[in-house]
Amino acid sequence: MNENREVSNLPNTKRTPETARPDSLNTWQSAIPHSENEWISMAHGGGGKLSQRLLDEIFLPAIGTLSLHRKLDSALLHFSGGKVAITTDSYVVTPRFFPGGNIAKLSVYGTINDLAVSGATPIAISAAWILEEGFPLSELKLLAEEMGTAACETGIPIVTGDTKVVDRGRGDGCYITTTGIGIVPKGRYVGPDRILVGDAILISGTIGDHGMAIMAARGGLPISTEIVSDCAPLHQLIDSLLHAGIAIHAMRDPTRGGLSSVLNELAEGVRLGINIGESSVPIAPLV
Amino acid sequence: MNENREVSNLPNTKRTPETARPDSLNTWQSAIPHSENEWISMAHGGGGKLSQRLLDEIFLPAIGTLSLHRKLDSALLHFSGGKVAITTDSYVVTPRFFPGGNIAKLSVYGTINDLAVSGATPIAISAAWILEEGFPLSELKLLAEEMGTAACETGIPIVTGDTKVVDRGRGDGCYITTTGIGIVPKGRYVGPDRILVGDAILISGTIGDHGMAIMAARGGLPISTEIVSDCAPLHQLIDSLLHAGIAIHAMRDPTRGGLSSVLNELAEGVRLGINIGESSVPIAPLV
Repeated sequence: MNENREVSNLPNTKRTPETARPDSLNTWQSAIPHSENEWISMAHGGGGKLSQRLLDEIFLPAIGTLSLHRKLDSALLHFSGGKVAITTDSYVVTPRFFPGGNIAKLSVYGTINDLAVSGATPIAISAAWILEEGFPLSELKLLAEEMGTAACETGIPIVTGDTKVVDRGRGDGCYITTTGIGIVPKGRYVGPDRILVGDAILISGTIGDHGMAIMAARGGLPISTEIVSDCAPLHQLIDSLLHAGIAIHAMRDPTRGGLSSVLNELAEGVRLGINIGESSVPIAPLV
Repeated sequence: MNENREVSNLPNTKRTPETARPDSLNTWQSAIPHSENEWISMAHGGGGKLSQRLLDEIFLPAIGTLSLHRKLDSALLHFSGGKVAITTDSYVVTPRFFPGGNIAKLSVYGTINDLAVSGATPIAISAAWILEEGFPLSELKLLAEEMGTAACETGIPIVTGDTKVVDRGRGDGCYITTTGIGIVPKGRYVGPDRILVGDAILISGTIGDHGMAIMAARGGLPISTEIVSDCAPLHQLIDSLLHAGIAIHAMRDPTRGGLSSVLNELAEGVRLGINIGESSVPIAPLV
């Protein structure tokens, strides 16, 4: 096998096949065809082209359903009682505590926002924790409390959950996967296919704050903790716009890839161009 | 800090605080109170007493909602259109392929079964993948196809998903968190509080097959692959019982802890005793 061919161009990361680990048990794994010498790289999770390829070339052909193909923040399901929205995200952020937030708060707010930008009223969240052996119970308690507080503040309950423990060195303290469900009120339809020529683009705040706060907290920037993440639940903000009769055509919650990725995706989806005046994009001076 | 006090009694595992890792960035982590020198151990994920303590002492006080307190396989939410069931589970099984199944199939079947034993008709599943840098794309493709096949076979679509990539050594190839939602038909009520004196206990098959198949595949048993996991979707089996008018009071999908844990929990919940004739518990000779 040629192990040199890489799908990623990230520098300085030594890559060996995952199955070459000494503790790996290959009895059943040997059934897996390793004809393509391609491995997951960090860039596959970055929200850019490789993430897109992962979705287009692996997940959609294998699992493809209509709602997966639409690549929205939430899937919308029609059933006799109306429309249910469902969204899921794993949170693997490092560090877990950063200026303005933490992984637990973020997991609740992120899920609420994914539902809200789909026009849904969030009704419940599930939380699955993958804990690494050796994770301090005191920090787990603190994170659970942060999650409880976020649920309480937003009024969206955590209704079910799961905890799994993985061997030391097979995790990173804790990962949280939250899934949210919401109800889309009858007659409400918000979606990227409603975008029309002449639509204006509104941004709910300055861009890049969260990403820069995380980078600063990681110690990767020569600045301290002055930049604070703007992680916050937006369902009430969105609700008040909708109730005020503002005809919102589409909404998105930009995550990995940021504003430019979101606008690119929206533009491609409707085959329209978007004009952005650089000076009109709100960015905090520090960011 | 006294690092010797442990909540677990697992032998031969060296324990150091998770935050003592050299690459850990403690700027924000230092806000966390480390007054209790207790760490997560593998036993916290085993489904026994420590798992129970984790839930009772950490999660319920912090996040506690009525449905979390009920500790059911799915939470049931009432809304104007009826009752929605929601369940979530992270799958971290090693090895990922075992006789009779694999992590992807298991994640779909497990979620479907958690809904079905709650009396719900499964309608959709979300799947969140946490991939480790270096995971072979060929295996990912195979697992995605297995998930797609399981969804297709059972008729329950995967409607939304997420993929995150974590650094090498911070994961274990791939973890999958599936969340399922289902609708509970009007008038159907299945739950452990309906258990009555005189109820009979039915088991859908021989016990221990899955656990032993996993142990055998891990190489921890002096036997080969003759034991096959019985992982399978049970929603149609359950549906046919319910449609035949069998008055099922409660159902459970035994996972970690197995039959004895489930029966213990059920008995404790209703403060009744359960008589089990050992010879009437179906166990395959090989198991």
